[in-house]
Formats: sequence, C-alpha cells, structure tokens
Amino acid sequence: MTETAATGADVPLAEVLRGERVESLHCGSVAVVDDTGGVVLALGDIETPVYPRSTTKALQALPLIETGAADHYGLTEPELALACASHGGEPEHVAIARQMLGRTGRDEGSLECGVHWPTNVAASRALAASGIEPCALHNNCSGKHAGFICTACAENIDPTGYIAPDHPVMRRVTQTLAEMTGVPHTDANRGPDGCSIPTYAIPLRALALAFARFGTGRTLSADRATAAGRLRQAVAAAPFMVSGTGGFDTLVMQELGTKAFTKIGAEGVLIASLPQAGLGIAIKCRDGALRGAEAAMASLLRRFGGADCAASPVLQSLTRKELRNWNGIHVGDIHAAAGLNDSR
Amino acid sequence: MTETAATGADVPLAEVLRGERVESLHCGSVAVVDDTGGVVLALGDIETPVYPRSTTKALQALPLIETGAADHYGLTEPELALACASHGGEPEHVAIARQMLGRTGRDEGSLECGVHWPTNVAASRALAASGIEPCALHNNCSGKHAGFICTACAENIDPTGYIAPDHPVMRRVTQTLAEMTGVPHTDANRGPDGCSIPTYAIPLRALALAFARFGTGRTLSADRATAAGRLRQAVAAAPFMVSGTGGFDTLVMQELGTKAFTKIGAEGVLIASLPQAGLGIAIKCRDGALRGAEAAMASLLRRFGGADCAASPVLQSLTRKELRNWNGIHVGDIHAAAGLNDSR
Repeated sequence: MTETAATGADVPLAEVLRGERVESLHCGSVAVVDDTGGVVLALGDIETPVYPRSTTKALQALPLIETGAADHYGLTEPELALACASHGGEPEHVAIARQMLGRTGRDEGSLECGVHWPTNVAASRALAASGIEPCALHNNCSGKHAGFICTACAENIDPTGYIAPDHPVMRRVTQTLAEMTGVPHTDANRGPDGCSIPTYAIPLRALALAFARFGTGRTLSADRATAAGRLRQAVAAAPFMVSGTGGFDTLVMQELGTKAFTKIGAEGVLIASLPQAGLGIAIKCRDGALRGAEAAMASLLRRFGGADCAASPVLQSLTRKELRNWNGIHVGDIHAAAGLNDSR
Repeated sequence: MTETAATGADVPLAEVLRGERVESLHCGSVAVVDDTGGVVLALGDIETPVYPRSTTKALQALPLIETGAADHYGLTEPELALACASHGGEPEHVAIARQMLGRTGRDEGSLECGVHWPTNVAASRALAASGIEPCALHNNCSGKHAGFICTACAENIDPTGYIAPDHPVMRRVTQTLAEMTGVPHTDANRGPDGCSIPTYAIPLRALALAFARFGTGRTLSADRATAAGRLRQAVAAAPFMVSGTGGFDTLVMQELGTKAFTKIGAEGVLIASLPQAGLGIAIKCRDGALRGAEAAMASLLRRFGGADCAASPVLQSLTRKELRNWNGIHVGDIHAAAGLNDSR
C-alpha cells in the first residue's frame, strides 16, 4: 500500500538518547520504490534532487562488466566488490586495489582520487605506527577508480583524465546512471564529488528506483541484468571489501548475503536493494549524518526485507545501537524513529 | 530589541553547499540573553531542557578558584585554561594536565575520565607513530578532571570517586551550575556525560544567562565575579589550551582575547560570553553537529559582539568555510543561515 507524508516536510529518522532524554534528532526523507517506479513509501520530500554521492558506486561499476573489462582481466569477486566500495583503507582493501591496477600494468600513480588517511581509525593508526604515509590506494574510493582504469585500459583507452565528465569512460558511467535512474545527467545537475569525479543530483525517488532495478534485474536489458547480478553476487561474497571492519554495509551483507545490498554515501545518503521484495530504498538524512540514515535503514530493511531481515539480530542491533562513554558505561542509544517501522 | 520566533520550531542554523546546491542543512535553537535574564534573541525552542555537555566547563572550574585551590597550588593561566578545555590531546595539553596533577603529588592514575586517543588527528597519528598508547591525560576532559582533583586535594578531601554526583567536589560544582543558570540541578535532569561526570539538562535560555553573567560578573557575588574574571583572563591568555590546533574556541580567542569567550560541547551545543555587550549566547544544533553550531555562532558573534567581532577576519572565515576535496579542489562551503545575521 502506498503511503505518502506531506511532501517537503522532513520526517524523524533517528533519535539520539542520553539517559532517557532525546539529546539529538535526525530528520530527512525516505523513498521505497518498486522496479516499475511504483512508490511504496514516501516520507518527506522525495522529488527535490539530492546528490547521491557514493551510494551509486555499484551503478558506476556496471560498465566495468558490460564492456568486458572484468572478464578481460579476470577480476575476482573481491575486486568487483571493491569497485563498489567506500572502503576503510585496511590492508586487505589496499592490497586488492593494488592488484586491480596491477592487472593493467599500472599502479597508484594512475589513480586520480587524491590521497587521504584510512577512514578506518585502527588502520590509520597502524599505518602511522609503521612510519608509512598513505597513498591514493588508501582513499576510500580507490577500488572504484581502479575499476574505471580497468574499463579504460581493456579497450585501449588512455585512462589519463578519467575523472573528467567528458572522458570516454566517465561518459559511459554517466550514461549508465541516467539509464538506471531514468533522470537526465547533465551539466545542470552536476556537482564535484570528494574523489573528483562528477556526482549528479537526482530525486530520491529515482535513486530508489535504480536500486530496485539493480536488485531484480527486471526492466533492464539482459546484459545489464547479468552485470547487476554479478555485482550483487560479488558484494555478497566479499562484503568486507565494501566498507570494512564495523562498517554498516559490511555488517548487513555479512549477515544477509544476496538478500540485501546496501551502500552508504557521504552527507547522510544510504540506499538498499531488496531483490526478493523487488524494492529499492533511498534515504537522505537532511543534516548529512550517516548515523541517522543507518539506524533508519536498518529499521526499513526489517520492515520491507521479508522474514530474514525481520529476524536478523544484526539489523536489530543497528536499529538501536548502544552508546558507551570512555569508561564503557552505557550512556544512551541511537535508535530509528518509531514511525519508520509502522506498517499502516 | 527582543525578537522571538515561534517557540518549538527549529530554525536553519547553517547550510552545506556542494557546487551551488544546498546538500545538507542544520537546524536548531538560539538564545541570546543579557545578564539580568532579558531575552534579546530567541530562535526556536529555548525552554525545553538540553544537555549543555562540555559548554559548562568554565562554570565547573569556578570552585577551583573559589575554594582557594588554584592559589594553593599556584596554578598558571595555561593550567586554568586547561581546566575549562575540551582539548585535542596535543603534547602541550598533555604536559599541562600532567603538571596540574603533579602539584597534588598525583598522576594520571587519579583521573576517572577514561582513556581515548587524542581528538586532534595529527596528535593521534604522532602518538601511534611513537608506539605509545594513550592514557587518561589524552582524554579531552583531562584538564577539567585535574582541576577537580586539585580542588579536592587542596582541602584534604580524598579525590577518589570525584565523578560521582554525591562527592563533595561534585556537589559543589553542581551547586555552582545551579546558581549560575538559576535552574535546579537534581536527579530529575541528570544524565551521564562522556567523561562520566553528571551533565544536567537545562533550558538554552538559562545556559545563555549563565554565560552572560560569567562575562560581565554583574549579579554575581564579588568572589564569584573575581573567579569568573580570572578564568576569562586565563583562556584569553592561553587560548591554545581550550581546544588546540584548528579548534573553534582556540581560533576565536586567539583573535579576540577577552572580548569573546566561546566553548563547544558535544552534540552540537555551543556557548559564548560577550562581556562588553553584556550578553550570553547558547546554541543547540538539533542533530548534534558542531559544524552547524560553529558557523551559526560565528555569525551571531559578528552580529552581537560589537565592532571588533564584526571586523574579525577569523569570524568571517568561520561564518563561511570552504570545503575542499582530496585533490584540494573547492567543492562547496558551509555557511551560516542568512537569517542569523538579520538585525531587524
């Protein structure tokens, strides 16, 4: 049944409690859409374009398979998963990114994503302790960028400048995003992402539709449906590659395998594919906080993801996470807003 | 002139832009109050109690001076500033915290704040690189806790258990908070803070009042006004101690000295004293994001802080901060909501 709240008004996504008191509140929008574009749940504004940021990485990886590059280089499931990842820069992630580049005879010097310290705090400290400076392989987007480079090199296209909107690889990636979301991707809705590739603002409804289609493969060409299925299989087989230790996407897919695909993005965007239910979910936490989007998504997965999701202890723990202070004392909780799990 | 928006409705505090598009939005409440309790500006809900968290550290340090402990141990301005601090765990902070404890013949073993890695990322990496594990001295609250221990030891009170609400030192600290804010501090509004001491939920209006009084000293006893003035002088003389490299409070006070006192707190709370204007300011960013509260506070300081604040390039840069990606490309800005600087 379709449920629509007043468009334009953000709804509560998650509350942060200290003791018994609500200390902070996250609000935003939610779209749950089927693979024909039918809106199953709309909370808040799902039409005003938002930047999807890293939530679309799996869509951006489709050309890696569709062009034949993945087969040309014999990419493994961990490599395909890393192409869809915002990873923590842990040693396993760095090794796989290096391996992907090595297949093209290249190294981190070809990456154009920039350098940052591992987002995984323990990995960052370990790197500092080893006296080694980070390189572009540690950038959380290095797998995606390595995938772009593989896509270029397999077709003998010079990968230099692959981050620019008019590079042949980026043009194909952008075309794929437009086809999957059904929304034009032009100069008018383009913004710069953290890793220097373009990101295109689109309605939350269109983002959810893209991931409903990514999940079921219905309404896609046979080749695209096969490519999407291969990526879903890869992330389910190697969920550690998608984020890493303690990451939301890794935790969810370690538990649920192919039953749920999720992907975080910067500034509080989070998507899911639920292949069995035939649904895509997209959340934008208005203030940009992932903690709010994550609690909300865990709740929505339990509501819409069927029996496996409803019974999942991991999803339950992500719906209501304990907060502990520096002495390990339980001081409060982050929990999804009650209204999200309301199936009226 | 008094200006009051609809109570209960959060107002925009800051926008996060990517390209020309608003990507994320922070909302919350603002109270600007004079030292007699007159409300000069009320935006959003300033009556529902919120946890002030670390914004009250300077008030919690008043007993350190009022009991004579600071004079007993001959505490310096950097030590008094560190007692008011949420510091980054940089080597200078750790050294001063150690020095404070040393004056009582004690060390970090007496701290009950718990251990965490330095919040300053460079300091954290440097510590990791040195192969040393952090201790309680690196906890951002170690100066405040060292102040509590000095307060106890100067009066020959056993500091053990000083974090408990019924310890003699904490009782005096709590009494001081109640007097400064004019709000009862009881079991009913008590919650646990990150460093294990109690934090008491109070209206934003009362928090702003406390810091108006802290700034001017008017309506306080002579001893308290002197103690407040001494703390204000200390943080102005040693602003690096209050947060550290790149920290909001340090940047503001390095520029403005005794003309403005500011202090951040966890979950998006931020206060200021403007002694010359006779005003206190308190902000709660509803979602808990300090980036939103900081941009808003910079704008409010420019509006209410007189000519020095209005002309301050540091405040201007904090009102609108550039966001750059990992390649150093300017991708957007965080800027205070336009309405905050509206003097109608």
